[in-house]
Amino acid sequence: MAKAETFGAERGLDRFEGFTDAVFAIAITLLIVELKAPGTPQGPPEPHGLARALMDEWRGYLGLVVSFVLIGIYWLQHHYSGRIYRKSDHVFGLANLVFLFGIMFAPYPLRTWAEHIGQGEDERIASAFAAFGLFLPALGWLLKWFYGVPGKRLIDERLDPSFLRTLGRQYTVTTLVLALSVPLALVWPRLGLGIAFLVTLAYALPPRKPRYVDAD
Amino acid sequence: MAKAETFGAERGLDRFEGFTDAVFAIAITLLIVELKAPGTPQGPPEPHGLARALMDEWRGYLGLVVSFVLIGIYWLQHHYSGRIYRKSDHVFGLANLVFLFGIMFAPYPLRTWAEHIGQGEDERIASAFAAFGLFLPALGWLLKWFYGVPGKRLIDERLDPSFLRTLGRQYTVTTLVLALSVPLALVWPRLGLGIAFLVTLAYALPPRKPRYVDAD
Amino acid sequence: MAKAETFGAERGLDRFEGFTDAVFAIAITLLIVELKAPGTPQGPPEPHGLARALMDEWRGYLGLVVSFVLIGIYWLQHHYSGRIYRKSDHVFGLANLVFLFGIMFAPYPLRTWAEHIGQGEDERIASAFAAFGLFLPALGWLLKWFYGVPGKRLIDERLDPSFLRTLGRQYTVTTLVLALSVPLALVWPRLGLGIAFLVTLAYALPPRKPRYVDAD
Amino acid sequence: MAKAETFGAERGLDRFEGFTDAVFAIAITLLIVELKAPGTPQGPPEPHGLARALMDEWRGYLGLVVSFVLIGIYWLQHHYSGRIYRKSDHVFGLANLVFLFGIMFAPYPLRTWAEHIGQGEDERIASAFAAFGLFLPALGWLLKWFYGVPGKRLIDERLDPSFLRTLGRQYTVTTLVLALSVPLALVWPRLGLGIAFLVTLAYALPPRKPRYVDAD
Repeated sequence: MAKAETFGAERGLDRFEGFTDAVFAIAITLLIVELKAPGTPQGPPEPHGLARALMDEWRGYLGLVVSFVLIGIYWLQHHYSGRIYRKSDHVFGLANLVFLFGIMFAPYPLRTWAEHIGQGEDERIASAFAAFGLFLPALGWLLKWFYGVPGKRLIDERLDPSFLRTLGRQYTVTTLVLALSVPLALVWPRLGLGIAFLVTLAYALPPRKPRYVDAD
Repeated sequence: MAKAETFGAERGLDRFEGFTDAVFAIAITLLIVELKAPGTPQGPPEPHGLARALMDEWRGYLGLVVSFVLIGIYWLQHHYSGRIYRKSDHVFGLANLVFLFGIMFAPYPLRTWAEHIGQGEDERIASAFAAFGLFLPALGWLLKWFYGVPGKRLIDERLDPSFLRTLGRQYTVTTLVLALSVPLALVWPRLGLGIAFLVTLAYALPPRKPRYVDAD
Repeated sequence: MAKAETFGAERGLDRFEGFTDAVFAIAITLLIVELKAPGTPQGPPEPHGLARALMDEWRGYLGLVVSFVLIGIYWLQHHYSGRIYRKSDHVFGLANLVFLFGIMFAPYPLRTWAEHIGQGEDERIASAFAAFGLFLPALGWLLKWFYGVPGKRLIDERLDPSFLRTLGRQYTVTTLVLALSVPLALVWPRLGLGIAFLVTLAYALPPRKPRYVDAD
Repeated sequence: MAKAETFGAERGLDRFEGFTDAVFAIAITLLIVELKAPGTPQGPPEPHGLARALMDEWRGYLGLVVSFVLIGIYWLQHHYSGRIYRKSDHVFGLANLVFLFGIMFAPYPLRTWAEHIGQGEDERIASAFAAFGLFLPALGWLLKWFYGVPGKRLIDERLDPSFLRTLGRQYTVTTLVLALSVPLALVWPRLGLGIAFLVTLAYALPPRKPRYVDAD
């Protein structure tokens, strides 16, 4: 197969991965900024004592933990994908920016959802918005894949084609399910968002070890 | 041509680029901090339900997306400029700080603009301020160019001089147009800022591949 | 001894350490965001002049300094642990995320504690919460150890087993004492939290130099 | 001269410098978070139109620019000091944390000062506080120097001793002048702080190129 064309100057992946890692690190650490300690000028008031004030913050904690888990899982996936991609070009960089937008943005809908659990009509909207927040980084991930992998444009050429096909199929199905979970959450909020969470959490399992074409 | 003098200790570009990448990564990820989720203590009130509250935030989303695109495009340009510059010195570091100030500062005028679209006199001021926000990083970029490139002071010496002249001309024109868009936006806000956006967006296209002098 | 199995793709530690370093750097620098300068719109009011307003902020300064010291000490420990671990896998990445959650989260309980010193019943709750905040990163650190070290799964194989046993025992005792300091702080807040601080501060002492098995 | 003892495990400087660079990058980019765009829920009100609201923010801009320049200058100094230090140990790490505390903390007193210019008694306090904010990173820098350089403990051994003596003298004088500027600013606020600014700005000049002992 002829190798697919790349656009703009090519560069190795080190700096590219470093930038992406930095966005991950910032997104995951910034989460704490949204929690305002009780008793501080910006924190919640405490008419019933500190223990109660801390417990009343459960929505904030939930949004924090869910966002942390999401970004953490994507970082792990991204980290080991360093075994797959070998270089980058301009269009791959644009696709990566879509992916990073999804990572940066996700805590916003997830926090919105945590604040509206059990609030009737608003929970519907919030759940669909949260499912959309889980869908966006998956879409960016898929864009990177479909630009970088076919024709072995940017990947390690020694990777086994059948290994790549399996992975590509898995990413496509995941993204489709996440896309469908958005309208589903509008009708049955907990079912739709529950599916989106499960599909995302599945990536906390160890990823497949890369398989290589035999060097013979 | 005699090589131009450098100032202070010279160093390779790795750490220099790493610092610049980190500022980019932080600037692009910090954007989310300005969005306050509806329902949280800092978020907007919801007298008409969550769906309406989310839609009423369109100015915040617009400012976020425009700032993300701007910083993202500059990161891509910076990333592949690693193929042009080869080392750094103290004065280049100062020029880079002007550039990074522009990157860090840009979201502030862009957000101000998004908050004043359709608000008569204030939209004029806000549009000119946003055009100024787009001009500043371009100015810093040009400062780096005019310090580092002439006399091949800091660049890869094998680069084709005519390639460098073309690039230098392009950066100069871009910066001049952005400078002119500021007063223009004071008179015709949408025309002036529109031009500034277009000129900036043009850099989302793949950059020219570097051309080298033949090694013969 | 047969080498323990690893899960998912293995990778060298450079990028992994870089991500962890970035989270540390962000967590330690974000602390300043919680201090709002007097006189700014978000800062404290100044009915009795600036000197008094600055002194009234002592709780904010205390929370800042204690959090800075905690994260700083852990960074130093993490930094030199680069001499112990040699590679990473998926499960080690998950354990590292638990550790990083502890680092990111710790300033929240510490700030809560600083705001409630001398406030009777609330100081009890706040002290136990702060001790919990000191316990969490120690737990994550221990998880990494017990996954990565036994069977020399991820470590430098030349390290002396008795050196590793000593270190493992030390980490286990530290984490147990920190776990016990939580209920203790509920009963005697200053004793419990004092112990937790002392145990943590002990890690500001220079760590043991790694010992290697003789190459003979 | 016998080489001075180091404490704890030694490590090369790459990761150490990377962490320090990251703290710089975050501190310099976080500055923008303190500016709240007019028209946003957190921004200043605009009873007299946007142009006036933007001009009324001059104290915020001043604090931003001064803090940016300070951190930028220190980053440049730190960047080229990579030519001097060659490795790190635990105590050097502690000294570096004092230095980084100064970098992270400086924007707070500088912002406080900008908010109190021209406010009589409060300007005195604010100016002395700002001078203290300029003194702190210089003190941390000097601690690193006096731990790492004597006995060539952590530095490039080929550096010319007389070059090192000159540099050490310069840093000591700078730090002493900054220390004296604090009480001076309490009496004559603009003189004291003016001296502190000048001494700091002098480091924007290209640093001396390192001199090496002849290899003969």
